[in-house]
Amino acid sequence: MITVNEHYSKLQASYLFVTIARKIKDFQEQHPDVDLIKLGIGDVTKPLPSACIDAFKKGVEEMADEKSFRGYGPEQGYSFLREAIARNDFRDLGIEAEDIFISDGAKCDTGNFQELFSTNSRVAIPDPVYPVYVDTNVMAGRSGVWKDGRYEGLHYLEANSENAFIPAPLNEKVDLIYLCFPNNPTGQVASHDQLARWVEYARENKALILFDAAYETFIRDDSLPRSIYEIPGAREVAVEFRSFSKTAGFTGTRCAFTVVPRECRAYTSDGEAVNLQPMWNRRHSTKFNGVSYPVQRAAEAVYSPEGKKQVRELSDYYLGNAAIIRKNMEALGFTCIGGENSPYIWVDGRRDSWDFFDLLLSAGVVVTPGSGFGRCGEGYIRISAFNDREKVLAAMERIKSSLA
Amino acid sequence: MITVNEHYSKLQASYLFVTIARKIKDFQEQHPDVDLIKLGIGDVTKPLPSACIDAFKKGVEEMADEKSFRGYGPEQGYSFLREAIARNDFRDLGIEAEDIFISDGAKCDTGNFQELFSTNSRVAIPDPVYPVYVDTNVMAGRSGVWKDGRYEGLHYLEANSENAFIPAPLNEKVDLIYLCFPNNPTGQVASHDQLARWVEYARENKALILFDAAYETFIRDDSLPRSIYEIPGAREVAVEFRSFSKTAGFTGTRCAFTVVPRECRAYTSDGEAVNLQPMWNRRHSTKFNGVSYPVQRAAEAVYSPEGKKQVRELSDYYLGNAAIIRKNMEALGFTCIGGENSPYIWVDGRRDSWDFFDLLLSAGVVVTPGSGFGRCGEGYIRISAFNDREKVLAAMERIKSSLA
Repeated sequence: MITVNEHYSKLQASYLFVTIARKIKDFQEQHPDVDLIKLGIGDVTKPLPSACIDAFKKGVEEMADEKSFRGYGPEQGYSFLREAIARNDFRDLGIEAEDIFISDGAKCDTGNFQELFSTNSRVAIPDPVYPVYVDTNVMAGRSGVWKDGRYEGLHYLEANSENAFIPAPLNEKVDLIYLCFPNNPTGQVASHDQLARWVEYARENKALILFDAAYETFIRDDSLPRSIYEIPGAREVAVEFRSFSKTAGFTGTRCAFTVVPRECRAYTSDGEAVNLQPMWNRRHSTKFNGVSYPVQRAAEAVYSPEGKKQVRELSDYYLGNAAIIRKNMEALGFTCIGGENSPYIWVDGRRDSWDFFDLLLSAGVVVTPGSGFGRCGEGYIRISAFNDREKVLAAMERIKSSLA
Repeated sequence: MITVNEHYSKLQASYLFVTIARKIKDFQEQHPDVDLIKLGIGDVTKPLPSACIDAFKKGVEEMADEKSFRGYGPEQGYSFLREAIARNDFRDLGIEAEDIFISDGAKCDTGNFQELFSTNSRVAIPDPVYPVYVDTNVMAGRSGVWKDGRYEGLHYLEANSENAFIPAPLNEKVDLIYLCFPNNPTGQVASHDQLARWVEYARENKALILFDAAYETFIRDDSLPRSIYEIPGAREVAVEFRSFSKTAGFTGTRCAFTVVPRECRAYTSDGEAVNLQPMWNRRHSTKFNGVSYPVQRAAEAVYSPEGKKQVRELSDYYLGNAAIIRKNMEALGFTCIGGENSPYIWVDGRRDSWDFFDLLLSAGVVVTPGSGFGRCGEGYIRISAFNDREKVLAAMERIKSSLA
């Protein structure tokens, strides 16, 4: 008899976006004349940079000619892209092309990486959090059942106003630590010192940090670390995930990468060190077959002189939106986090997350209730800067009128 | 301490293609003047059909304009593609668009699907075999250690000349059964009756069949089943994997799909039936973020009138090569399987696989030793029809002269 992986039955249905969709539908039925402004979802709205479009098209044209046609590529990605990433994103950080594995998304990579570890690893996960880290560990059997809004057996790193939404290392011992800066959903960014404390914890406790830097492109404060490898000693204890999704509008085009430094290690149960790079290479080449060749060419163009300029303009545009949102919400008396080096603004609503959501919906603006990201998100909302400037301005006017 | 998934240490390094590469390198150093003809790898050589190129480019252009730009798409794939597949590939087979999950490769899907099942499932795997089925189950802990050329704990379905390379169901009980027709590496195709016996076995034993139909496009004999769903009762007990890789030359473009019929079931340990479709949907939407939009448009074009014609011409071309290879090898006195409804010809070399490989290499032709696909492949070689006609003809001349 074929029996299922019963850990799946522990998974809670994700009611967050389902509930939002239902509330929007109800509202639209009652107010068919209102054109809702959506600042809820973390998806980009601006088209691909023209440098990427040109390279993408050229890649497609190569597939039309027998002489330039490409079949199976290297599972790890083409050298032209791995080298461009190493040279541009990790110069002087000790990361080389062979440490970089190209994939079709940071969601896949952050979801898949836990496969390399034993199922009894103790997992530390932020709260509030991007749900993929949690769900993939539940599927793998690293949690107990759902109880009082949390999975038993997981170690939650509570982020709240007391620690400025940057959790410090725990007193208890954990093995696998998920961190995300600039953070989704709070928009907060850890300093060098704060990351250094985590690296120190990982080194002392033989733990591993999975560092999600998918929003790195929005960092404008040069004193903030863009990569965990800016922290000395991190290469032995940290894997970093990056993506072209937010950097260059690739959410529908699909390209990302994971950095597994050759020094990075875990251990056998006997305590013998094991390099993770060959293990990830084996996993990646056994269960993945490379990213579409024209897509890799489009991603490479992000690093061309025009690409760099266009990508900077894109993130400047969304950061301009974020500044408008934060300024307006603060002027209305709300305490905000994020929005300065991040496309997300995390607003203390001083009331139940869903009540605030309902209030803003009645004003014609959709946001995301913070409680959907975890228990510590209760009382907050996340406002996304991914929309057109005029819609952001109109949304702020609506919120102002509604709260006046 | 972060400890590794120790099942990875059971994995055998894949020496097959490494050894082939080394032998080729040695040969080329000794014979720098010989232009080797490679009939070893299962990768296509002809460019994408022009219908796909046009749709691909149009998809890229849509990404350049704010009005037509697409961000995150549905993880399961766009309806336009799921509906085209259901309508064209599964008409009258009871499969609908919602049963179809678009992905970036059949390698990923066949590798990932086992995650849905308990780690103590008993797994039946053909020999010879495409190594991904084996390796992903070893990684998941469903095997013992490697011993005498096989993993302990796996159930090997032996394919040999006695059963015409189509293994019948076992007398012992297994839970998860991997089948692939047209087969890689043997090129053999199961009949309706032979598949019906497997479906009957699965129904009687509450087992599940994972049916890899990546080479379906090469079937020309209309009496042969193209889909396992042609067998009555299969929808409850079988998942089918398909790909655009060989159908339309997408090996470097990346698009495939998995069919999980809504009737398809597994069981809890208490014997309660569980529908697999919502489980796979949860897995797919948690760990995957959809295929690149322009790639999905290119795949959709496979089903346009021009696309269908061009795709047929592609497979006709490779089948023409296959017929030449089989005819020539038979004329030289070798017994062959495949090559009629498949791009692979499985040749009984009447000697050690590597000896035959070496002999053909010395003639300037690269093939794949059958022993690399499993113990039952010993004595055979696989010749691939994926190359240019003139090279195939030249290769046959070289082999003839060498064996004369």
